[in-house]
Amino acid sequence: MGKKDKEFVKEITPRAEDYSQWYLDVILKAQMMDYSPVKGCMVIRPYGFTLWENMQAGLDERIKATGHRNAYFPLFIPESLLQKEADHVEGFAPEVAWVTHGGNEKLSERLLVRPTSETIICEMFSRWIQSYRDLPVLMNQWCNVVRWEKVTRPFLRTSEFLWQEGHTAHRSEEEAEEHTLRMLEVYRDFVENDLAVPVVKGQKTENEKFAGARETYSIEALMSDGKALQAGTSHNLGTHFAKVFDITYLDSDGELKHVWQTSWGVSTRLVGAIIMVHGDDRGLVLPPKVAPTQVILVPIAPKKVREEVLPKAAAIYEEIKEAGIRIEMDDREEYSPGWKFNEWEMKGVPLRIEVGPRDLEAGQAVLARRDNGEKETVAIGDLKARVPILLGEIQANMFEKAKNFREENTYRTDDYEEFKKIIEEKRGFVISRWCGHGECEQAIKEETKATIRCIPFNLEASPGKCLRCGTESDKLVYFARAY
Amino acid sequence: MGKKDKEFVKEITPRAEDYSQWYLDVILKAQMMDYSPVKGCMVIRPYGFTLWENMQAGLDERIKATGHRNAYFPLFIPESLLQKEADHVEGFAPEVAWVTHGGNEKLSERLLVRPTSETIICEMFSRWIQSYRDLPVLMNQWCNVVRWEKVTRPFLRTSEFLWQEGHTAHRSEEEAEEHTLRMLEVYRDFVENDLAVPVVKGQKTENEKFAGARETYSIEALMSDGKALQAGTSHNLGTHFAKVFDITYLDSDGELKHVWQTSWGVSTRLVGAIIMVHGDDRGLVLPPKVAPTQVILVPIAPKKVREEVLPKAAAIYEEIKEAGIRIEMDDREEYSPGWKFNEWEMKGVPLRIEVGPRDLEAGQAVLARRDNGEKETVAIGDLKARVPILLGEIQANMFEKAKNFREENTYRTDDYEEFKKIIEEKRGFVISRWCGHGECEQAIKEETKATIRCIPFNLEASPGKCLRCGTESDKLVYFARAY
Ligand SMILES: [Zn+2]
Ligand SMILES: [Zn+2]
Repeated sequence: MGKKDKEFVKEITPRAEDYSQWYLDVILKAQMMDYSPVKGCMVIRPYGFTLWENMQAGLDERIKATGHRNAYFPLFIPESLLQKEADHVEGFAPEVAWVTHGGNEKLSERLLVRPTSETIICEMFSRWIQSYRDLPVLMNQWCNVVRWEKVTRPFLRTSEFLWQEGHTAHRSEEEAEEHTLRMLEVYRDFVENDLAVPVVKGQKTENEKFAGARETYSIEALMSDGKALQAGTSHNLGTHFAKVFDITYLDSDGELKHVWQTSWGVSTRLVGAIIMVHGDDRGLVLPPKVAPTQVILVPIAPKKVREEVLPKAAAIYEEIKEAGIRIEMDDREEYSPGWKFNEWEMKGVPLRIEVGPRDLEAGQAVLARRDNGEKETVAIGDLKARVPILLGEIQANMFEKAKNFREENTYRTDDYEEFKKIIEEKRGFVISRWCGHGECEQAIKEETKATIRCIPFNLEASPGKCLRCGTESDKLVYFARAY
Repeated sequence: MGKKDKEFVKEITPRAEDYSQWYLDVILKAQMMDYSPVKGCMVIRPYGFTLWENMQAGLDERIKATGHRNAYFPLFIPESLLQKEADHVEGFAPEVAWVTHGGNEKLSERLLVRPTSETIICEMFSRWIQSYRDLPVLMNQWCNVVRWEKVTRPFLRTSEFLWQEGHTAHRSEEEAEEHTLRMLEVYRDFVENDLAVPVVKGQKTENEKFAGARETYSIEALMSDGKALQAGTSHNLGTHFAKVFDITYLDSDGELKHVWQTSWGVSTRLVGAIIMVHGDDRGLVLPPKVAPTQVILVPIAPKKVREEVLPKAAAIYEEIKEAGIRIEMDDREEYSPGWKFNEWEMKGVPLRIEVGPRDLEAGQAVLARRDNGEKETVAIGDLKARVPILLGEIQANMFEKAKNFREENTYRTDDYEEFKKIIEEKRGFVISRWCGHGECEQAIKEETKATIRCIPFNLEASPGKCLRCGTESDKLVYFARAY
């Protein structure tokens, strides 16, 4: 590492030294976000927002492909609507922002800024749904929501955040359960294939489920500091909300019945997952499928050869761009190639093309991968074919790397002392048997700060004893400290 | 018109009878929106929201093509930030929603829900912009905004609405002015070409300009009831905000200077413009470029031939869909073809394909246009080629029709009595001379309810006298009653 390199990297705290500080250094330096004058609310800068737009495109396509259409419901919800569902109000009331005045007038009823939209959507469903012919109703909404948080962390926990929330109504219990799991699978597919983040699918415990849901399912990811992050949730709401909001339909048998509902969401916290799963001490590493810039082209053009190199670099840029690849060219004169390499590595651009006068003479360019640092020399005529292949390989390699990391950091024990040691010293996922009692779960949380992330789908039950209380149990669950 | 037709149409009030009621009947019946339990806020239902998504796609592409990137700024703005720019606070304070409590705690400073984001964006610009090398800054944001309205009308004026707001910072006065007009032209291009709504480009008067702007420009459209609608605005903010928010840059000459800013926006009120410009007594007429469904395929399949007709209809559906056209097939058994024709006409689908057993025998289908009711018979093998051509013709015809209507309803007079008569009896645009004084403008407004829509770019100045006060003036302006 040269002197300049060291200076550059110095601005990012190494992960091993202070992971939280590394995270903040990276997202600020890469201009993903900035703090705002509003406590707990961040500004998503264009580089971060373009990443989010690319993520939205991939997920929105999947949501539409499963039959949903987007809609938009009001930001404000009358207090009386929130009050209708008891668990829901208990879960959300302590963290909502209240609008009390419009212009100079005091409102007759306080309005809350939506923390989620079940209540107002249910109110509308009760007007729209009459007959079994109206079912299923499959809707989605992309919007901002507000949850008044005391401790915030950019992307991971902010008072305002962006998300999508899907809301559906079905004719039967089975159909609603199937749909809940279908959307969980959509999330897994999206997060693993587009974001290259491996996840564990499973069910939430009674303590951890959504306020008002019958069952909550989630996908859980492991960050590179060994802490877990809930990457998406899908709720089977049963008929809880339908009964409270009187959402009924006349069935073909002539009976009036309550609909069965689901809701599911992912948010800008997935941006945090991408950063923490893939990033390294040099900065971001972005998956090609969602990276704002997939390829950065850096012409190496000292003044005396500038006139020769730039037009040829521009031709390469145009050719790759026409192939539908998100490429940028950095031909700024005021920065050295080395500085630019560092800059774009820090920004996590998956692939770099370098072209200098000698490369051009030899009719070739150098490709450098962000994920593993490998370089290769490619004939200029082959770039258009080679670049998409490499982007695909980077995407696959990033997923494999993250999956290997997760597997290396997934432990298996029913011994509570060993469990505590792993959680304290190594972090990671710990698969253990649990008796199924909320009190026991709560005690483990208090004693170790680890929570049950999920009751996974992928593990066969087998006899054994609860990690903490020793009760006979065949229930294997994933524990971790979590964001 | 058959009996069923009459019954169907009866549900929509004719425009001539009650235009406002016609508008509400159409948008409710077409399921564009619904009222919500929150006063002044509406629900945008999937059919309306898909239209908005298609509009967003066309405009977003143009905004990006002119060098802007999207970002996201907080929903909430501290009261102290709003207070900084005097005109701005005067313009917006009476209509903002105030957040006073977060969870159970009273906030130390009230937050307003953004009515527009100049203040918070300027605050961030002052941190981000240091050198002339940072300029221009070209940003855009798609978001919800809130303006507490006493009288609301779906899409046209609601307490919460969706929009995009562009915000830019430039090095010079000329560049900012050029950019303001560039974005106005982007709006004209989008509204005329994608929405088929002809507009007049011009400048707003001092009375009508944006709170805090140096100059405001707008595009103005004429609805089919003869009232005008401001379809988009672009503001040259000068250095007003830069001075208040201390947004400075070090220029190449070593001097610290204030940036020159612009902001510009269009909103979901454009949905209202589409409805009112193109709609008729049978319902919506949607421009093909943004219509949620461009083609509706109605198989005419009585029970005994159902098995024969449906597979062939499905093959047509697949073929057209693969050509990238937004087609839907309505093969519901419980409704008659006639009912379906009415239904999809009411929903404004630009083109209908009918296929019945006799058509199929003859190897053909019938195409019916929504814009002019014309029908033609096309060989099934030619559908894929013919449909996109017809959609293009419909788009062009809708624009021409709207433009002709506007021209027929644009009057020219400097005689105040004639002016009052036109405004009262015919509505439409009236081009008249105006002295340039705000008091005179105000008096005309009070006496006739007509406002100056803009000082147009397309009219040559020529000597004459002010419509009302008789002062010598060569300034021709567009007057109209407006939404
Ligand atoms: Zn136990
Ligand atoms: Zn006058």
